[in-house]
Amino acid sequence: MEQSRLSHMIVLFTDFGWRGPYVGQLKAVLAQQVTDQVIIDLMHDAPVFKPRAAAYLLASLVEPFPKDTVFLVVVDPGVGTDERRPCVLKADGRWYVGPDNGLFNIIAKQSTEYKAWVIDWQPEFLSDSFHGRDLFAPVAAQLASGQLPAMTETSLAQNPQDWPADLAEIIYLDAFGNAMTGLHATHISEDATLRVNSASINYARVFAEAGKGEPFWYVNSNGLVEIAMNQADAAQALDLEIGTSLQII
Amino acid sequence: MEQSRLSHMIVLFTDFGWRGPYVGQLKAVLAQQVTDQVIIDLMHDAPVFKPRAAAYLLASLVEPFPKDTVFLVVVDPGVGTDERRPCVLKADGRWYVGPDNGLFNIIAKQSTEYKAWVIDWQPEFLSDSFHGRDLFAPVAAQLASGQLPAMTETSLAQNPQDWPADLAEIIYLDAFGNAMTGLHATHISEDATLRVNSASINYARVFAEAGKGEPFWYVNSNGLVEIAMNQADAAQALDLEIGTSLQII
Amino acid sequence: MEQSRLSHMIVLFTDFGWRGPYVGQLKAVLAQQVTDQVIIDLMHDAPVFKPRAAAYLLASLVEPFPKDTVFLVVVDPGVGTDERRPCVLKADGRWYVGPDNGLFNIIAKQSTEYKAWVIDWQPEFLSDSFHGRDLFAPVAAQLASGQLPAMTETSLAQNPQDWPADLAEIIYLDAFGNAMTGLHATHISEDATLRVNSASINYARVFAEAGKGEPFWYVNSNGLVEIAMNQADAAQALDLEIGTSLQII
Repeated sequence: MEQSRLSHMIVLFTDFGWRGPYVGQLKAVLAQQVTDQVIIDLMHDAPVFKPRAAAYLLASLVEPFPKDTVFLVVVDPGVGTDERRPCVLKADGRWYVGPDNGLFNIIAKQSTEYKAWVIDWQPEFLSDSFHGRDLFAPVAAQLASGQLPAMTETSLAQNPQDWPADLAEIIYLDAFGNAMTGLHATHISEDATLRVNSASINYARVFAEAGKGEPFWYVNSNGLVEIAMNQADAAQALDLEIGTSLQII
Repeated sequence: MEQSRLSHMIVLFTDFGWRGPYVGQLKAVLAQQVTDQVIIDLMHDAPVFKPRAAAYLLASLVEPFPKDTVFLVVVDPGVGTDERRPCVLKADGRWYVGPDNGLFNIIAKQSTEYKAWVIDWQPEFLSDSFHGRDLFAPVAAQLASGQLPAMTETSLAQNPQDWPADLAEIIYLDAFGNAMTGLHATHISEDATLRVNSASINYARVFAEAGKGEPFWYVNSNGLVEIAMNQADAAQALDLEIGTSLQII
Repeated sequence: MEQSRLSHMIVLFTDFGWRGPYVGQLKAVLAQQVTDQVIIDLMHDAPVFKPRAAAYLLASLVEPFPKDTVFLVVVDPGVGTDERRPCVLKADGRWYVGPDNGLFNIIAKQSTEYKAWVIDWQPEFLSDSFHGRDLFAPVAAQLASGQLPAMTETSLAQNPQDWPADLAEIIYLDAFGNAMTGLHATHISEDATLRVNSASINYARVFAEAGKGEPFWYVNSNGLVEIAMNQADAAQALDLEIGTSLQII
């Protein structure tokens, strides 16, 4: 039987945004069930309702977190339907709790070993629209406390092996208009040119090396290829959205 | 005499927004005066300068919090004037600290029992514009630490019994354009149609059950009637603002 | 040799914004290296890439924090270049960690005594674009834990004595369109009129004292002169931006 141990951190990765009571309500549930764990808001503007883009983004962020960290991950367009099951993934010693809709596929694919479970445990009250608060948060709290909720081993609904390791698409736009891609920089030469919409984009090491208002790509701080412009909004200038596809030349 | 006990949580509900130093300064005051309490940001985009809408919103959110929780609540258009008094409310075992401008009326009205006090305690320094930091936060810290500040029992400035239990108005717009109303879903049949501006809006259980781009109402995760559109911005499409009134048919 | 002691608080002041994983990643680094310290998000919308405006803003906010507080401060347009050095400042007992680009000049100028160091300590991995996470956060964690990283005493790159004590410019716009200036209210008479663009702006004690839609200046809760309009957006109405200059008449 799988064992859980006390974890030091619960990490939140959602598409809730900072507005509204949603993040606060989720943390209130955690705060009533765990005491010593630090809760980290990793991000709350994950690609809204886009689990595929979110899967590549999440996978680029987990490496610095210690084993036994519990990630509470909610990007869940199918909430309240039977289309998707609630699940737990354990990959390389870290736990992930959220909907089984592809969100964890790149984590699983990149891991040395992983196991997945469907969550059988049920809360007393389950709203139709907020499983993050009612179901996933209590499960995350149990895992972080060294307890295992009722759950059954399963395969992920989508086979991670069917997904590409690199995704030649925009997966995230930040507040400054920088556009992350699903491409790992280690898989691409600095000589490579990216084509996106009708623009050609070359490499620069840092913003200051690029001409003002000229698009460039660089290796972002999480190891992904990112498209940016020095002191300008690349997403706007190049008409980039989450899902826009790229060619590598 | 009223007794206070150590509380586990201090919950913030304000209209400060996340920008600027305001939330941080308020938490810095709390962090210097309490040590073991968890501070939860429930929301910082409460209806700006609209204590009536905020009163209905706040009341929909408090039930899951344990007794002895201290709520620090600031929606305060009259700050720095003599028009409103600083107050403490105790209702069903939970504490509320903030301006006596109607903010606590629905909490009081819905409670089994409540008591209100005007705050006599004064800080050494009181700015004209930031009583949240200078007055309400230290009072919340005292209550959370099991101490009672100097205060005198009183009636609320507005009589809670004069306010309707349900408010047939929009009380909050979230980041996705979903519009919360002040109507408790338990008071309304699923057969009911809502009229707002010139639109007619029927019930759907979840987003996925509604046609794409069609407005519907549903029971939100806090038990309020909420107007939404599947993958579209209901507030924009229906021209909804905080205060827009509804008819129930 | 300088001594460091355990501090109670680590205070974050950055221009990262709340979107993206940046604040979360920085806090994850801190959470793995400190245990008992409270982490306060003072602000994450400091003037983007404008260390001079940020310097006046930061200096207006530090006074309420206890000695030994560690401020982690990142407004860093020169990240990844050799143009600026990473530095530590100790001023009036408080620690500051960040780039040596003028950010700490007003803190230093206003202090009774200060000392500055260039940081010699190097992390195992240093990204080109995120020194906040890779370099400044670990140094802040060391200082907060009572340890001194390898560092060498130095002078600040820009001499604080060359900077004016008051800056007759807009240094920050808040979400409501209120415009902070770099002027200390204690240096200005309530009879003074401010000229900005072509508008003349007189003093009012509180918002409620000003006519609706009329610009006024008041003493904000941090002691700076701030320009506002009652129930309107002063920045928009008066065409104010960070850096817009003022005359005092």
